[in-house]
Amino acid sequence: MRKADVVVIGGSAAGLTAAITCRRHYPQKSVLMIRKEEQVLIPCGIPYIFGTVAGPQKDIMSDAALEKNSIGLLIDEVSDIDPQGRVVITSGGEKVTYEKLIMAMGSDPMVLPIPGVDKKNVFTAKKEVTYLQKMLDTLDQSANLVIVGGGFIGVEFADECNKNRDINVSIVEMLPHCLMLAFDDELCTAAEEVVKTAGINIFAPEKVVAFEGDGKVSSARLESGKELPADMAILGIGAVASTTLAKKIGLELGPARGIKVNRYMRTSDDNIFACGDCADKWSFFDGSPSNIKLASIAAQEARIAGANLFGARRMNKGVVTVFSTVVGDKAFGLAGLSTLEAIKKGYNVVVGEAEAPNRHPGGMGGMALLKVKLVFEIGTGVILGGQIMGAKSGGELLNAISACIQQGMSVDDVAAFPVGTHPALTASPIAYQLTNAAEMAIKAMKSA
Amino acid sequence: MRKADVVVIGGSAAGLTAAITCRRHYPQKSVLMIRKEEQVLIPCGIPYIFGTVAGPQKDIMSDAALEKNSIGLLIDEVSDIDPQGRVVITSGGEKVTYEKLIMAMGSDPMVLPIPGVDKKNVFTAKKEVTYLQKMLDTLDQSANLVIVGGGFIGVEFADECNKNRDINVSIVEMLPHCLMLAFDDELCTAAEEVVKTAGINIFAPEKVVAFEGDGKVSSARLESGKELPADMAILGIGAVASTTLAKKIGLELGPARGIKVNRYMRTSDDNIFACGDCADKWSFFDGSPSNIKLASIAAQEARIAGANLFGARRMNKGVVTVFSTVVGDKAFGLAGLSTLEAIKKGYNVVVGEAEAPNRHPGGMGGMALLKVKLVFEIGTGVILGGQIMGAKSGGELLNAISACIQQGMSVDDVAAFPVGTHPALTASPIAYQLTNAAEMAIKAMKSA
Repeated sequence: MRKADVVVIGGSAAGLTAAITCRRHYPQKSVLMIRKEEQVLIPCGIPYIFGTVAGPQKDIMSDAALEKNSIGLLIDEVSDIDPQGRVVITSGGEKVTYEKLIMAMGSDPMVLPIPGVDKKNVFTAKKEVTYLQKMLDTLDQSANLVIVGGGFIGVEFADECNKNRDINVSIVEMLPHCLMLAFDDELCTAAEEVVKTAGINIFAPEKVVAFEGDGKVSSARLESGKELPADMAILGIGAVASTTLAKKIGLELGPARGIKVNRYMRTSDDNIFACGDCADKWSFFDGSPSNIKLASIAAQEARIAGANLFGARRMNKGVVTVFSTVVGDKAFGLAGLSTLEAIKKGYNVVVGEAEAPNRHPGGMGGMALLKVKLVFEIGTGVILGGQIMGAKSGGELLNAISACIQQGMSVDDVAAFPVGTHPALTASPIAYQLTNAAEMAIKAMKSA
Repeated sequence: MRKADVVVIGGSAAGLTAAITCRRHYPQKSVLMIRKEEQVLIPCGIPYIFGTVAGPQKDIMSDAALEKNSIGLLIDEVSDIDPQGRVVITSGGEKVTYEKLIMAMGSDPMVLPIPGVDKKNVFTAKKEVTYLQKMLDTLDQSANLVIVGGGFIGVEFADECNKNRDINVSIVEMLPHCLMLAFDDELCTAAEEVVKTAGINIFAPEKVVAFEGDGKVSSARLESGKELPADMAILGIGAVASTTLAKKIGLELGPARGIKVNRYMRTSDDNIFACGDCADKWSFFDGSPSNIKLASIAAQEARIAGANLFGARRMNKGVVTVFSTVVGDKAFGLAGLSTLEAIKKGYNVVVGEAEAPNRHPGGMGGMALLKVKLVFEIGTGVILGGQIMGAKSGGELLNAISACIQQGMSVDDVAAFPVGTHPALTASPIAYQLTNAAEMAIKAMKSA
């Protein structure tokens, strides 16, 4: 019988961050990570192995952080848990006792329940090195690729698979536009323009109803009757929380079908915490169930869970979605609620927009336009969301917006925010997008 | 007699932003800007006209914002004001009545009180096109340039003047290191390394005691007795608030020798507001007088002043210094207090640092290391400051730190902050510098 004070199941963004956080907060406690993967992929980097970084071996998370933080590692699959005896049992026959357990098993890609989905060369975005290598090999021999789902995973896959290859890539999206669950319409349209300019076909609104082919996929049949040739297909339609183990030991699930956790990331078992894609989530704004699954949220929850193991220290205030993507050379990002989401939640909203070069004067190297769009509640003036589009510096500007949202700042607070600017790094202080977008929202409020 | 509801004196970062803000908040009020310059330079861009952007004409602020916002423009110098009659008088003979007046006259470069400072080819960083063109012409004919002052202006001038020129550039700095009033030692040293690698000489701690030469400067004599050949010299030793006009009409000055303003940017005359370099400033932290002069702060104060003209709406909470610079290809930035400043103000501090690539995996294009260092008060855990060094994406990350400071966030709030990450835009969620620097500060607190 092996023994560890803290056992962490899972080695991706949530598991690794939780283990490190535990070591930092409770240096006297021993931590053992149990994961089934020999090598762990950087999850957000997966689309890029098909283009920019060339291969899964270029997207591996180093285990150096484990050694540096004295975190033990057992590569094995957890097959069962005895919550009363506080024992983790692996399929390799190991038994490990724990004081506190962190479940960070992640999620599994969703599979479309349609005929032919089990044909050869129909893939999902699995986080497994050999599987992804097989995808890459198949891609290199394919002339026609169909991607099902135009969310950010689908768009990133399409963009990368299309790079430096003589291939015909098509995205099939159910909604009228790609990325519609993430961004306001004009950002979706702008992203689609970039995708189309790169030669990628978009079919939207459209559905794949079946994959055809003799053993191997040869085409995708669409609801409209169209038939797209396809010697490879990738499903990017979302992921479901990995809860098999949790259900097996009787942990409660939450309304978003993840492992139920309280605001301290504790499950229905006092000694078991959960974080990341496998944990249930709720909105920062109205507490409603949230299906969002992002490595950044996983890491955030892991920082909460890891710090709370032996005493509640940090509260999970719920998901403030903050994420970004790059299409072509253009960054797109959202923090908080999009305009549509805010309206759906019942807010009376007002928006403000500002666009400016990310350098000043424009002749400074690396100049690109960057647009910021902010959404406020009209009565209180509280910021609800922000979107960025354009220059890559917007990726970090988005985190300033996130801070404004998380702190419930008012439109005047944002407008008179103490920003730092520099010719080679940002817009000018006069044209700075964040403050000006807030001013434009006030102008809109006044004329409303 | 001309008439405007609002008259703004000055057309740089403060004046222009105040005028625009007034138009946005009070669309029914007419606004007239009076400035003496035919063309206004982008202030932060001035060092770059000597290298990257090649010439003052590439660093001009467009007047398009005036037209777009229906702001009148009078190019003339204000020679007097009648505060009782609410009349502005110009040296061109114009008289303009106002309801509210905004003073945004900026600052003037300081001149060293040493022998020979009035010799030909000894320059300051004046914001005048013809003066700067003369500097550039002189620079192009110079073999030896001495820069007095190793603050960020001095370092930026040195770096730019040294670009694509066969010239010997030297910085003479009073303090032991360049940039010491801005950053912690290790950032100063790192910046100096970049400067030296570019072939620039640094003399520190050292003082220029006289300029020698027959009419024209030919050398700078140092306190140590050294004599540096110099056919050109630039003084970058700071600036003083432009208060001549304010003193003439009896406005009170503040402890930092700027025009005294209350928290709404109102001067001792109820109908006159001041903002930017000419206005007095105080620290966000302890309210002590602040001599900091930055275009970003000027614009922030202008957004407060402009919105408050006909009813107090925004409060100036004092200066949270947020600024950044680029030396070579490396960004350096500060938000709030450096470690030394925090200690000087009497705080018991703890610091946390984290460094990581600004991309994940590392093979993504544009990868560079970015370090974040945070300073917290040890008893309350409240964030006091942050510094960034490395990748240019740090310029906007600094604004996320600024938000944390302005909102008085605790070390746990920062550690569990909802960040957005993306392979092509930021560090990985696990290694993200801001959250990890906070965790390292907690670790340091625990072992303190």
